[in-house]
Parts: sequence; C-alpha cells; structure tokens
Amino acid sequence: MRPYAMRRRITRVLEGAIVSNMFFEPSTRTRVSFGSAFNLLGGQVRETTEVKSSALAKGESLYDTARVLSGYSDVIVMRHPEPGSVAEFAQASRVPVINGGDGPNEHPSQALLDLYTMRQEMAGRGRGLDDLRIALIGDLKYGRAVHSLCKLLGLYKNVTLHFVSPPELDIPPDIAAELKAKGHRIESFHELEQGIHDVDILYVTRTQEERFPSQQEADKYRGLFRLNQSVYTQHCEPNTVIMHPLPRDSRSEAQELADDLNQNPNLAIFRQTDNGVLVRMALFALVLDVVEQVDDHAKPVTWFTAKRREAL
Amino acid sequence: MRPYAMRRRITRVLEGAIVSNMFFEPSTRTRVSFGSAFNLLGGQVRETTEVKSSALAKGESLYDTARVLSGYSDVIVMRHPEPGSVAEFAQASRVPVINGGDGPNEHPSQALLDLYTMRQEMAGRGRGLDDLRIALIGDLKYGRAVHSLCKLLGLYKNVTLHFVSPPELDIPPDIAAELKAKGHRIESFHELEQGIHDVDILYVTRTQEERFPSQQEADKYRGLFRLNQSVYTQHCEPNTVIMHPLPRDSRSEAQELADDLNQNPNLAIFRQTDNGVLVRMALFALVLDVVEQVDDHAKPVTWFTAKRREAL
Amino acid sequence: MRPYAMRRRITRVLEGAIVSNMFFEPSTRTRVSFGSAFNLLGGQVRETTEVKSSALAKGESLYDTARVLSGYSDVIVMRHPEPGSVAEFAQASRVPVINGGDGPNEHPSQALLDLYTMRQEMAGRGRGLDDLRIALIGDLKYGRAVHSLCKLLGLYKNVTLHFVSPPELDIPPDIAAELKAKGHRIESFHELEQGIHDVDILYVTRTQEERFPSQQEADKYRGLFRLNQSVYTQHCEPNTVIMHPLPRDSRSEAQELADDLNQNPNLAIFRQTDNGVLVRMALFALVLDVVEQVDDHAKPVTWFTAKRREAL
Repeated sequence: MRPYAMRRRITRVLEGAIVSNMFFEPSTRTRVSFGSAFNLLGGQVRETTEVKSSALAKGESLYDTARVLSGYSDVIVMRHPEPGSVAEFAQASRVPVINGGDGPNEHPSQALLDLYTMRQEMAGRGRGLDDLRIALIGDLKYGRAVHSLCKLLGLYKNVTLHFVSPPELDIPPDIAAELKAKGHRIESFHELEQGIHDVDILYVTRTQEERFPSQQEADKYRGLFRLNQSVYTQHCEPNTVIMHPLPRDSRSEAQELADDLNQNPNLAIFRQTDNGVLVRMALFALVLDVVEQVDDHAKPVTWFTAKRREAL
Repeated sequence: MRPYAMRRRITRVLEGAIVSNMFFEPSTRTRVSFGSAFNLLGGQVRETTEVKSSALAKGESLYDTARVLSGYSDVIVMRHPEPGSVAEFAQASRVPVINGGDGPNEHPSQALLDLYTMRQEMAGRGRGLDDLRIALIGDLKYGRAVHSLCKLLGLYKNVTLHFVSPPELDIPPDIAAELKAKGHRIESFHELEQGIHDVDILYVTRTQEERFPSQQEADKYRGLFRLNQSVYTQHCEPNTVIMHPLPRDSRSEAQELADDLNQNPNLAIFRQTDNGVLVRMALFALVLDVVEQVDDHAKPVTWFTAKRREAL
Repeated sequence: MRPYAMRRRITRVLEGAIVSNMFFEPSTRTRVSFGSAFNLLGGQVRETTEVKSSALAKGESLYDTARVLSGYSDVIVMRHPEPGSVAEFAQASRVPVINGGDGPNEHPSQALLDLYTMRQEMAGRGRGLDDLRIALIGDLKYGRAVHSLCKLLGLYKNVTLHFVSPPELDIPPDIAAELKAKGHRIESFHELEQGIHDVDILYVTRTQEERFPSQQEADKYRGLFRLNQSVYTQHCEPNTVIMHPLPRDSRSEAQELADDLNQNPNLAIFRQTDNGVLVRMALFALVLDVVEQVDDHAKPVTWFTAKRREAL
C-alpha cells in the first residue's frame, strides 16, 4: 500500500465503490484516516458524524440503520459509544462493517496499526514480536485500544507485559487471564518509574475521561503518570520505543507524554498515525476482496470482487 | 441505473460534476442516498449538514445562499425545515435544485422512490398501478412523504385510498379534495384494523414528532397504530405489500411496524431504500441532461450537457 | 482555471490527492468553495467541521493535530477562531497549510479573490489597480477580510483608501500605518454618505458580531451603515463597483447592502464568490507544484510534484 499512500503510484481499484463512515462519537484521526485510505484506493466516502443529525435520533434501531446503509455503500466503518453496538450493526448489514471503536470495548483497526508499527520499529532493531517486552501505561480499564492490542499481542510467543495504571484503572481481569493462559508474562505496577524498566516498547494512553461516571471521578487520575525526557533517560533502556494511540492530552496539568519527547527519535507516535493509512487501506482491500486478475490482454489488473450489490 | 448501482458497470458520466448536499435538518437516509447516487455516476459531493455551521446562522438570506452555492456546484439537493423554503431557494439558484424535504410540506424524491417501488412490487404480482388500492397509515397531517406520494398516485387511474389516522392527524383537506376531483376513491378510518382490509399496499408512517407544537402533544399519538405479524395475518389480504418511508420508530412503546414483520417477504421497506439510490441517480441524470451521444469514432458515449458553468 | 471551473474541460491533475478541510468555525462559502476547487482539479476532500467532534476537544495540541493530519492529506485548509493558530499549525505540518481564516486576524484567500475580482471589474472599465480609489465600509476592526485585503492593495501604486466605520470599529492602526508608509492616501469617515464619494469600489462588510465581547456590544452597531440603491444613486459615481465578502446580513434591521441593489449590474458580490473557486483552484495548483511536463509520447501532461508523501 505504501507506494499508493505516498502517491508514487495511483490506483483506481475501488473506483465506483463507496464507504459509509458512520461516526456516532467524536473522531478526527480514525475517521479521516479511514476516509483518506479509501480515497487513496480510488473510492468515495460518504460520512455521517453525529448521532443527533441522524436517523437514530428519530428512534431508529441499529438493525434498520444497518439494513438501509448497506444498500448505499460497499463497506461501512462505524464508531459508536455502546459496547457491542458495532457487532449488532454488522449482523444486520449486507456489507462488511469495520469497527471504528465501540465505547470502552474494542478499537481493532487501532490495534492493527499499533501492531504493524511495532513490527516496523522492532524490525529496525533487528527483532520480531516474539519475546517482546512491552509496558502498557495509563487508563487500562477504559482504553479500548489497549484491549484490542492485548488480543493481538497474545498471538505472539513469550510476550512480557507490564500493566502500569492506578489500581482502579487496571486492565480488565478477563484480558489479563487470557494472556496468562497463553503463557505470557504479566506484571502489574502502580508507579510509572517501576513499570518502564526493561521493556522494548512503552505504550502510553490518556485517561478516557469521557468514559468515567463523572468528571470529578476522571479528574482524580489526570496527570498521575507523566513521561518526559528526563524520566525516560533515567529509567528506560536506550532506544525504547514510545507509542501512544493519540490524542495525547496537551493540557499542562495532564500531559502523559511531555513535549520535550518530540525530538526523541524513538517517539513513534506520528509513524503510528502514518501507518494507520496503510493498514486501513489493507483492511479495505481485504474486506472488499481486492484481487489481482489477468485481463484479456494478459496484463495483471486489480479489481475488487465484493458481492454487496447483488443484495439489491 | 441498476447495473451501475450494483457496480457491475462503472460510469464516469458525471466526472467533474459536483452536487451540494445542503441539509438544514437531520437526515441520514436521504442525504447519504443522494450522495451515493451522485458518486455512482462519477460525480463529487460537497456537503453542509447543519444550519448552525453555515452562513445562514450569520443572518444570510436564502437568496444569497442560493446565488453563492450555485456557483460552487452543478446541482443542489436541499432539505430545510420551512415549507416553501426550497422553492424560494430554487428561484434564486443558477443550477437545478432538488427538494430533499421542506418541513411538513413535500418530499418529492421519496415519493418517486415509493412509486417506483410500488411499480416493482405490483409488477411482481402481475399488476400495474391503475386500480391500485392503498392504505396510508399514521401521521398524515405532517407526513410530507405522504403528501408528495398522493400527488403522484393521483396521476394513475381509479386509485382507492384508505386514509388511516387519528382524527387530528388527518390528510390535509386540499390533498384529499384534489384526489376526489380526479375521480379516485377515498375513505377515512380512525382504527387500524378497519383501514387495512382489502388493499394491495400498506404505506405506514411514523408520527412526525419534531413537527408538533410540543412533545406532550406528540406523545399523545405514540403507538396508536401498531402493525405486527398477527394483525397483518388477521386483517390483510395475502401478499399485501408493506411500505414505510423510514425511519420507523423502534422504541417499544411506539413501534408502528413491529420487528416480527422483518421476516415477512412482503415487507418492502429495505427494497424501498435500495430503490432510492436508483431513483436519485435517474433524477440527477434527468436534471443534468445526461444524454447518449455518438463520438468521433461512432461509439455511443454518455455525457451531461447541463449549462450551469456558463453562469460563471 | 476557468475552462475547468466551467467544466468545458475536465482535468485529473490532482487525482490521488487529498485536501483536509479543517473548519473549527462555522463556514459554508469558504469551506465548500475550497472543496469544490479541489474536486474540479480531480482531487478528493476530507472534512472536519466542528471542534467539538474532533481530537482538539480531547485536549490535543495544534502541534499534534498538524503532525497527524499532514500524514493523511496533501494539503490542509484550516479555519480557527484563534488569531495565529493557523500559522502555529502550519509550522508543525508536513504539508502546505492554507489559512481559511484565523479569528479576527487574516483571511488571505478571501483577499486574493477580492483582488482578482477588482482586477476583473476594473479591467472591464479599462483600468488597472494602480491609482485605485476604494472605500472600505463597516466593521474594520474585526473584519479579517479587510485586514488581508489592505496588505494586498498596499502592493499597488498610489491607492486611495476611505475607511468608513464607527470610531470604535476603526481599522487597526498598524494596518493604516503600513499603508501610509508606502505612500498611499488614507482618509477616515464615520458617516457612510461622506465616505462613498469619489471612489471606484465600495467594499462593504458586515459587523462581525461573533467577535464582540458581548451581544449587547455588537447590537450597538447593527444597521449603522446601510447602502441601498437610493443612497448609491445619490452619492456614488456612476458604475461604482459594489463588493462584499459575504455573508451579508439579511435581517431587516441590519442590512448593510439592501436587496434593491440586487438588480444593480455593478453589484459584484456573486462574481466575487464565483471567482473564489478559480482563485482557490489556482492556490492549490500553486502550493502543490502543479506543472506541465512532457510524457514519453511527447505530449504535454500536467502533474503535481508536491513532495508530501515522502515524509511518510
């Protein structure tokens, strides 16, 4: 996907195809990234960005919205505040549905781009993802990107995971249990400095303030864990990769990743977002069955073979 | 339009053309459907979805907005809460304007897709639309889709219309009078069970709660008429078509079309929305003068000949 | 650009390219105009229209948003309520950023289309912009379009500027000083009738009510200067051009440009907005290095050579 993303090559493989970006929660990064990915493959984007300007506001069920929207598009990307809502929607849809985040539950495309970034970063260090040592830091309870990422990391061998969070924002026990059952090493920490020793990657997250029962409750955790260049230098191994699903909180009392890390070459956060386009392009190609074929004149052509429109 | 909508064929006939989707009221279905239709013909969509994020919020007149927007696009689709606003806008526009719904007044593209669906459904039963028997059910006062549909049905011969609504939400008298004057048979019912006998099609609508003077006023009518499979089996002729302009209300106390109808093969509501894309594609082709021409090499080519840009 | 804008010719020079329209303040005209311009050159538009539906609402810095967004697009158009915010954003971006208006500060693309329109209108009168006489009328303090326009007018020779405003809404002193330093003639007026004598162009603006400390403060200035056909006939030279950056206020108590001017052929306000598309197309071509090249078969082809994607 890289030559197309960098526009060294141009493809129209998805010409005539339409993605419906259905975002029932605020999003810039995920929404624009999916949209750009689809455009780069030659497709068009139709977007709905607020629940209040939508049929759901008139009492429509997810079932109906899914039945309808899947007649307007070849694939749907959906973000929704309710855990499980995207799966429910996908069940009713006649076209593939990609989860763009369902409340505190999952954010699988983020996990895929995180994993791809980890592979790239570790490859640059002559390593793979087996035997990886990673610290996951911050709000591990509500951080859906972390939840999805843990499922993917569990597929590799002998991973060491440091869960670094306030006790109340621990990783959900079922996720930890699943990792343990697969034989990975898990350790919990409640102090930043203790958790960031001896790992290859720091995966830092913000407090998901919008998921808390109240703002006061959320305020208690603001700024508890703050990584800056001096903490990094003092406690981390050289060349420890720094990742973050973004957005990071820039308010001075909150910064979980300080600005002085911006010059640190191990800060991979913008390589992560750049990779998001590549990974989402690949995801679209996958769910729409983009294939290479040989045309009449024996030249290979790419096309997509998704069967949606047959439902009409 | 069907092969293009199903993407068995791809067209760029509207390449270089732009539609402005101007939606000053919430809409998913109509807005996305128009947008997808334009994309499927090869054109681009520019969208404005909220009055508050628009120039109208700064006190601009419809006249000025129309003069300006018609310099940015080849055709405009507009939804607006004020009856008559779209006609006023169209008067000032230099390009064709399609009414996407003007308050309780009209919703003509919905009526066209409804009519097309009725033709398809009746054709499947070996019938045309002359001598059609149809029950229009629900909020007939504020339901603009019904208003526009009645105008179209009036063009056929010998139509029987059952208006089934609470007395306060009757069809506007001028619409009924016009149908009578053309010799169609009209009957009014205030009970669902009585109105759905002996018809070919049930056209069910939701209560247009957002049009009522107050929510309390609207609440009075919620859930008054509720069609479900058992009512259908007991009172309707076999194979009576069930239609609805959507969204249908999914709240348990309101459902005008119960979920247990989803498996009924006569439920045509999603065929309706699918057809919306076809009909809106045709509508764009019509207003933009898409024609078949013969090019230099004697192959037929399609092009559109709308003259908008000359206004520049 | 005109043949492409009028769709007499079609170009795909920006095929595969994406513009991010980032509008953190309400806009129809500027936003749609930029979007249409990009579409007319063959490119795709990704749009973010409200700060509250964006990452900035989660406390993200402009720096981060810029770093991220510039990995998703080839060029960014940004409007933001904070003066200087667009420049700060541009500093962090890896792709060109076009200022779509930064609070009361600047609105450079508006100034370019205004200048282009002035050139066209004066050319129609056999004149250039040297020795131009222009009255700038209304809220000159908060009117960013005026601020940017003055900078451009200052580049010509021997311009006469009438600043016509309530004393409290005078042009910022540094802008006046700069014009004076360049040898232009400046006069201030606090009465409309006195300021519109002996000029070639009237550039009328609305009160920027959203910039005032309070609505009451803004209300004081509503409707102070009102140009209508009778005032125009009585006080202006024949064929004085009337311009306005729009939107103009249509509320009866506010109209700075009365409706009865709509038939006046010197009212250039919609030629201005039409020209906005041309100028913004040119702007995109400029910042994306669109060039003519000769391909293998010795035919000239246009392409764009912007280097963004290399940053990936």
